[in-house]
Amino acid sequence: MTNELVVIGESSALIERLSGKRPLFVLTIGTTDTAKIPGISAAGRSPELCDFTPAADAEYIVLERCLSIDGVPVTPDGIPTPALITRAAVKLARIPVLVVNAGARFRPKLPHVELGGGPGGDIRTGRAVAGARELFEAGKLIGEQTSAIADYLVLAESVPGGTTTALGVLMAMGFDAEGRVSSSMSYNPHELKVAVVEEGMRRAGISRGSLRADPLKAVEVLGDPTIPVIAGILTSSCRNVPVLLAGGTQMTAVLAVAGDHIRPHVENVAIATTRWIVEDRGSDIFGLLRQVMPEVPLVYPRLSFKGARYEGLRAYEDGVVKEGVGAGGAVVSCLLRSSSLSLSDVVTEVERQYERLTEAVGHERASL
Amino acid sequence: MTNELVVIGESSALIERLSGKRPLFVLTIGTTDTAKIPGISAAGRSPELCDFTPAADAEYIVLERCLSIDGVPVTPDGIPTPALITRAAVKLARIPVLVVNAGARFRPKLPHVELGGGPGGDIRTGRAVAGARELFEAGKLIGEQTSAIADYLVLAESVPGGTTTALGVLMAMGFDAEGRVSSSMSYNPHELKVAVVEEGMRRAGISRGSLRADPLKAVEVLGDPTIPVIAGILTSSCRNVPVLLAGGTQMTAVLAVAGDHIRPHVENVAIATTRWIVEDRGSDIFGLLRQVMPEVPLVYPRLSFKGARYEGLRAYEDGVVKEGVGAGGAVVSCLLRSSSLSLSDVVTEVERQYERLTEAVGHERASL
Repeated sequence: MTNELVVIGESSALIERLSGKRPLFVLTIGTTDTAKIPGISAAGRSPELCDFTPAADAEYIVLERCLSIDGVPVTPDGIPTPALITRAAVKLARIPVLVVNAGARFRPKLPHVELGGGPGGDIRTGRAVAGARELFEAGKLIGEQTSAIADYLVLAESVPGGTTTALGVLMAMGFDAEGRVSSSMSYNPHELKVAVVEEGMRRAGISRGSLRADPLKAVEVLGDPTIPVIAGILTSSCRNVPVLLAGGTQMTAVLAVAGDHIRPHVENVAIATTRWIVEDRGSDIFGLLRQVMPEVPLVYPRLSFKGARYEGLRAYEDGVVKEGVGAGGAVVSCLLRSSSLSLSDVVTEVERQYERLTEAVGHERASL
Repeated sequence: MTNELVVIGESSALIERLSGKRPLFVLTIGTTDTAKIPGISAAGRSPELCDFTPAADAEYIVLERCLSIDGVPVTPDGIPTPALITRAAVKLARIPVLVVNAGARFRPKLPHVELGGGPGGDIRTGRAVAGARELFEAGKLIGEQTSAIADYLVLAESVPGGTTTALGVLMAMGFDAEGRVSSSMSYNPHELKVAVVEEGMRRAGISRGSLRADPLKAVEVLGDPTIPVIAGILTSSCRNVPVLLAGGTQMTAVLAVAGDHIRPHVENVAIATTRWIVEDRGSDIFGLLRQVMPEVPLVYPRLSFKGARYEGLRAYEDGVVKEGVGAGGAVVSCLLRSSSLSLSDVVTEVERQYERLTEAVGHERASL
């Protein structure tokens, strides 16, 4: 295996088995009105624009351009979506992409799988996801079909506000998750997130840990539409093939929801994320993983933008964005696909895309 | 290669190459109001019920039960949909299924790919498919992604009225197709079909052959939504992998629309159909293929329901239904998947399903 990957956990054998294999990258998208609470998410130039980010991310990783917005999704400071990294990885390694709409306010303008789910509600209302059980079952159907054709699956998400909904699900299930979920901002507003979750709990009349035995109820009350869908895909597919959960702390909520369904096949499951998540002092993915499913290993690429040519990429090293759109897992599966691909290829391709996006309007950040 | 398959054409090498390989079965569904013209289609108990047939077929081949209707789609005489054959084949060989909604009045109640297309219009109006070019492009995107993951593709359709729309596209392109397209009925209403097409041509101000150089315009005027989508999937995928067009005479219209786009890769393309189409005296798939793309071989399984235990299956031998939902191609790919699978396995499995469907209400045809 390439020394550009780091595997943490007792069983690194899974990652070695993926070398040279053909993955399918499944991006599940959704929105939650939770992202519109000021200060919660930086996955859009403004809270309102967060609603377009998942559709635009999906378009970008398939088409290398967005149809639903001008330019690409950016943080309020103009730092571009990690979809650039994902696009670079799936393009270099020719990894096929399937887009699944779990429930996004705006649909991507390209072929995608529809499940009939609607956008998620503000979790402060205690009514976050209608039909979480149906979304979980639909996810299982997707997992059955995709795991019959791919050597392994890479399951990614794009859902602004997703760390707060993950926190909600984890707290409702009784995990000690406060202060441990990640953030798309360099300053992680943990107190705001906890206050949002607690307001939703109060409204729904539940308490910490009271939904330990009913994770899909926890999703209905405090989650977002992507969590049950990804948990469903994971549940049915990991019986057949290895599965990389491509994301940060949100993926521990997916593991918690899949729970006992996947324990017999847990040797087929890993989290694939970024170095920015692993090294983040404002969150604690290992602390979450240790509580939720400690036998699941974690893999990340040694990708760095320290020497990147553009300030908008170097900003990733300051802890902005960190992960999303399965960026870490996409790079992992790119490196595993072919020994002739390296991290410098990924960085060069991301820079090329960044350059094209900024040149389109003649100014480094103006188009982003 | 199994002697249960018959290959007709100069290049049978393609079929031999598929032995043991892993296909993806892609069912593209749509509706056209053309099916509601009395006497045009038997793909539903009544012309109105034809609108539910594609969604129900999709549900059946994935779930082995329909969610959109009670029982399964049947002809006015109660003969069941060929989806039973397709289901048996994909189940026995564990072939993954992707459902694509090109434009159906009712969506299937399971995860499926949405393209944003609407149901097709009655071709007598000369306005059959809005956005045929967009549907073709969306199909190309699907073909790019699916051909990166599957060893080969099996492209099927479910669209009641589809032989009439195929006739429309072929006539608008100047092919001598009159009397050559198939029918879901044992009596093939060729005169009605031609009259319907001619009325559409008059309304649209076109004449036979006037759209030879503009096949997507022919689809807009006289086609149905599945034709441009399947032609698009075919166009991009056959550059990468072999493609079986799983259907009867309709697939010659798909070939005509794909046309020059696929000629450089035509060695990767075959039609896979049923014996009931090949032996049908009321249609002429070879006469169509000879005009449209003579280098494309045709393969079919020696599947027979002569000795089937149920009258509703034996009726297939009288020329009812004949093909649909990619039944012929599904059986072809089932037999190619594993040398341990045989036609008797397929017949036994279809009989088992038929039995279960009829037992559900205690009467042979009542539940169908």
